[in-house]
Amino acid sequence: MDSPQHFLSPQPFDRAFLDNVLDRAVRMKHGADKRLLEGRSLGLLFFNRSLRTRTSFQVAMFQLGGQCVNLTSSSDFWDLEPEEGKVMDGSAPEHVKDAARVLSSYLDAIAIRTVPFGRNYDVDRRDAVIHAWAKQARVPVLNMESNVHHPCQAMADLMTLRETFGELKGLKVTLAWTANPQPQSAAPVHSLLTAGAKFGIEFTVAHPDGYDLDAGILADAKAEAERAGSTIRVVHDLTEGCRGARAVYARSWPSLECYGQPTVEAVKRSRFTSWIVDGARMRATQDGKFLHPMPVRRNVNVTDEVMDGAGSLVYQQAENRLHSQKAILATFLKS
Amino acid sequence: MDSPQHFLSPQPFDRAFLDNVLDRAVRMKHGADKRLLEGRSLGLLFFNRSLRTRTSFQVAMFQLGGQCVNLTSSSDFWDLEPEEGKVMDGSAPEHVKDAARVLSSYLDAIAIRTVPFGRNYDVDRRDAVIHAWAKQARVPVLNMESNVHHPCQAMADLMTLRETFGELKGLKVTLAWTANPQPQSAAPVHSLLTAGAKFGIEFTVAHPDGYDLDAGILADAKAEAERAGSTIRVVHDLTEGCRGARAVYARSWPSLECYGQPTVEAVKRSRFTSWIVDGARMRATQDGKFLHPMPVRRNVNVTDEVMDGAGSLVYQQAENRLHSQKAILATFLKS
Amino acid sequence: MDSPQHFLSPQPFDRAFLDNVLDRAVRMKHGADKRLLEGRSLGLLFFNRSLRTRTSFQVAMFQLGGQCVNLTSSSDFWDLEPEEGKVMDGSAPEHVKDAARVLSSYLDAIAIRTVPFGRNYDVDRRDAVIHAWAKQARVPVLNMESNVHHPCQAMADLMTLRETFGELKGLKVTLAWTANPQPQSAAPVHSLLTAGAKFGIEFTVAHPDGYDLDAGILADAKAEAERAGSTIRVVHDLTEGCRGARAVYARSWPSLECYGQPTVEAVKRSRFTSWIVDGARMRATQDGKFLHPMPVRRNVNVTDEVMDGAGSLVYQQAENRLHSQKAILATFLKS
Repeated sequence: MDSPQHFLSPQPFDRAFLDNVLDRAVRMKHGADKRLLEGRSLGLLFFNRSLRTRTSFQVAMFQLGGQCVNLTSSSDFWDLEPEEGKVMDGSAPEHVKDAARVLSSYLDAIAIRTVPFGRNYDVDRRDAVIHAWAKQARVPVLNMESNVHHPCQAMADLMTLRETFGELKGLKVTLAWTANPQPQSAAPVHSLLTAGAKFGIEFTVAHPDGYDLDAGILADAKAEAERAGSTIRVVHDLTEGCRGARAVYARSWPSLECYGQPTVEAVKRSRFTSWIVDGARMRATQDGKFLHPMPVRRNVNVTDEVMDGAGSLVYQQAENRLHSQKAILATFLKS
Repeated sequence: MDSPQHFLSPQPFDRAFLDNVLDRAVRMKHGADKRLLEGRSLGLLFFNRSLRTRTSFQVAMFQLGGQCVNLTSSSDFWDLEPEEGKVMDGSAPEHVKDAARVLSSYLDAIAIRTVPFGRNYDVDRRDAVIHAWAKQARVPVLNMESNVHHPCQAMADLMTLRETFGELKGLKVTLAWTANPQPQSAAPVHSLLTAGAKFGIEFTVAHPDGYDLDAGILADAKAEAERAGSTIRVVHDLTEGCRGARAVYARSWPSLECYGQPTVEAVKRSRFTSWIVDGARMRATQDGKFLHPMPVRRNVNVTDEVMDGAGSLVYQQAENRLHSQKAILATFLKS
Repeated sequence: MDSPQHFLSPQPFDRAFLDNVLDRAVRMKHGADKRLLEGRSLGLLFFNRSLRTRTSFQVAMFQLGGQCVNLTSSSDFWDLEPEEGKVMDGSAPEHVKDAARVLSSYLDAIAIRTVPFGRNYDVDRRDAVIHAWAKQARVPVLNMESNVHHPCQAMADLMTLRETFGELKGLKVTLAWTANPQPQSAAPVHSLLTAGAKFGIEFTVAHPDGYDLDAGILADAKAEAERAGSTIRVVHDLTEGCRGARAVYARSWPSLECYGQPTVEAVKRSRFTSWIVDGARMRATQDGKFLHPMPVRRNVNVTDEVMDGAGSLVYQQAENRLHSQKAILATFLKS
C-alpha cells in the first residue's frame, strides 16, 4: 500500500502545490468541479468544539457529491490511546492505531480537530495525536486544527488576500496579537506564517513582551521568506506593527513563558487589554484590510467599528473556508 | 441584497399565503415536488433538545434532494452573544451577528430551536435570540420553536384539521391546558391560535385560574378571528371547555403570574392534576378528535384510552410535520 | 398493516436466510447493488456510545443511496418510558410507544443501540427496551447492540470466517473470555454462538470459573449445533481452550453470579488478568486466526504481538461490518 498524502500543516508543500490548491479554490468558488467526490465519505472527528469548520466541511462534501460522518468525542465515542506498546488498563478502551485502521476501511479521508491540552508545551508542540492518526491511517488525514497548525484556515486566509490584493509577493501583512480573556491556540498564526512565507508575504508580527511565537516555527518561516525574497520582522507595539500594513490579521495566543500555568498567564495577559485592533490603529495602516480567523470577541480583540467597517474581510475570509476546503478535498482525496 | 423572508411566526402571513403552504404540503404528502432543493443545505441549530423536529427536518431535506447540517449547541459549539455593542469579555466567545453572517455564506437557510429561559417573561416574550438571528442572517431563518412561537407545529396542526374536517372556518377547536410535572412553553398554542384565527377556527381556550395566555397574543388572535368572522372564548373548566368541540388540542403552559418562580409555580400547578383529557371529557365533545403537539405524558396530560382511541389524531399530526415542513422549505428557500 | 420484519437477534432466522445475507454481503463487498435504497432514511438511535457501528451504518446507507439520521440520547433527546400503562409523572417525558410510532412515519427503519444497565440480570436478559421498540414500530427495527445480542457483529464475524476458511461446518472456533478492567456485555458472543451454531461451527467456550454464559443462550445454541451435526464444549482454561482451534475470538463478559455487584465483580475479575490471548496460546492453535469484536484493550485482552501479527483478522472483521450491514439493510428494508 502506498502511504496516503496527509494535510497536517502547510510546511511540507511548496509554493507551486499551494498555488494549485488556491487556483482550484477560486475555480470552485465559481462553480467548477461539481460532484467530483460522488459517493465518498469524509469522517469529521472533533475532540474540540467547532461551528465554522464543522459546517463548512459538511457543506463542502455535500456540494462535491459526498457526505461527512460527524463524530464528536465528548458525546459519541471514547478516549483513544495514542502511545504505542501500552498496557491499556486505563481510561481509554481503544488505541488510535485501531480506530485509525478501522475508520480507514469505511471512510475516504479522516479530518481531525484535536484537543489543545495547554499543560506542557514540549508535549503539545509535537502534535502527537494528529501524527499518530496520520501514521496509522490508510486514507488521507486532514488537520481541522491541532495544537500547532490550522492549515485549512491558512488556505482560506491566503485565498482572501489574493482575491483582495492580487499578488502576495511583497504584501505587507501584520500578525497582531490581541487581548482575549483566555489564551487561544497559535495554530492559525503558525499556519498562515508558514504558508505565507513561501509566497513572499512581508510579515510583521506584533505582540507584547513575553508572547514570542514558537521559535522553531518562526525560524522556519524566516528561512522560507528569505528563499522567497522577503523578510519577517517582530515588533512589540501594536500601533507600530500596524503602520504601513496592507492587512492586519488579529489573533490572541498563549505566552510560552508561562504555558501550563493559567493563573500566572492570566495576570500577565491582564496587562495587555489595550492590545485591541481599533479605528486609530487601522488608520495607521496603508488603507489596510482587517482579517481574523474567528470566533471574534468584539470590543476585546477588535472594535465593532473595525469589524463592521468597509475594510473588514472577515466574512469573505470565513466564506472562503468553504471554497478552499473543497479544493483541499479534491486535491487530497484524489491523490 | 434583498432581505430574506423568514418564518418566525404565522403572524405576518395572511390566510392565502398559509393556505398555499398547506395545499403544497398535501401535494407533497402525495409525492409531488421531489428533489426541489437539490444540493441545498439547511442548518439545524438546536439550543434545546428535539426528537420529532430534528428527525422530520432531516428527512424532509433529504427527500427534497438537500441535506441538513445538524448543530447542537451543548456538544458542538459555544455560547453566542445576542446583544449588540457589548464588550465581549464574558462566557460567549462569538456574537450571533457573526455566527449568522458566516453560516449564511455556507447554508441556504438556518432553522433554530432556542432555549426557553423561563426566568423573566418581559424578556422571554420578545424572543430576542431568534430575532437577532433573523436580523443578521442573509438567508431565511426558520423557527423550530422559540419561547413564543412554534409555527412549523401550527402548520402540521392545521393540515391535520383540514384533512379531517375539510373546512376550517367555524370549526370548534378547544385548546386545553393540561396537568404536567413541569411548565412547558406555550409556543405551540400561541402559533396555532395565531394561524387558526386567520382561517376562522372557533377556538375555546380552557385553563385553570391564573394560567391566562399572553394577553398580546390573545388580543391579536381575537382581532384576526373577528376579521375572519369567528370568535375566541376562554373558560376555566376543562369539561365545559370540551363540550361540543370537534377537536381538543392538549398542552400545558406556564402561569405568567409566577413566571420565573419555579417553587411557587409548582405549588400552584399541583392543584390542577385533574386537568387531564380523559374518556368522559371526550364524550362531552361532538364526536371530537384529540390532538397534541407531543411529547405526551400519558395518563398525566391525557389517558391511554384517549391517546390510543379511534379519535386520536396525534400520529397523523406528527407525520404531517414532515409534509408541512417540506412545503415550508420549498416556499421559503425558493423565495 | 403487516408487521415489519425486525433484526433483533440471529435466533429466529434459519441457516438459509442467514446464508443469503452473507452471500449478498460478499457481492456488495465487490460492488453489487449500488443505490438500492435511494432516498431512504435510517434512524440511528444511540443510548450508548459507538464509533464503528455509527460510522459503518452511515457509510453503508450513503453508499446505497440513502441517509442516516443520527440521534444520540445523551445530547439530542430525552428519557423514554418503556413500560405500558404508567402514569408518566417521572423523568421520562415521552413513551417508547409514541416515539416509535412517530419515527416510523418519518423513517424507513430504526436501528437502536440500547443502554446496558448491568444492575439486575433478570431484567436485562429480557432486552425489554429493544422489544418495546420492535412491538411499536411500523418499520423494521435493527439491533445495533442490546444487552443480550449484537447480530450485526455476528454477521460480520461469520462473513470473515467464511472468507478465511471457506466452509463453516465443523470449523473449530474458540470463544475466549479475556481480562478487561470492566465487565463488557456478552452480546457479541451470544450472537455469534447463536448464529454460528446454525452453521455447524464447533465452538469451544473458554472462561474462568464463575463466568458461565447465560444458560438459556447456551442451551439454545447446543440444540442448534446438534441439529447441524456439531457440538459445543466449555473449558475453564484459556490455553486448553485454544488448543487445536482454527480461530480464537476474544471478548470479556460479566459474571452472572455477581451481576449488579460491581465491587464483588471487580475483586473476582482481578484474579483473572492472566486470561490474555498471547503468542504462546496462539501457537497452541492449529495455525489459528485471531478475531475480536473491538474495541480492543491492547496488552490486556490480547498482546500487541497477536493483534499486529499475520494471523489477526480484526481489521478485516471490522471492515466486514460495512459490507454485512449493507446486506442486512438491503434485506430488511426491502421486506
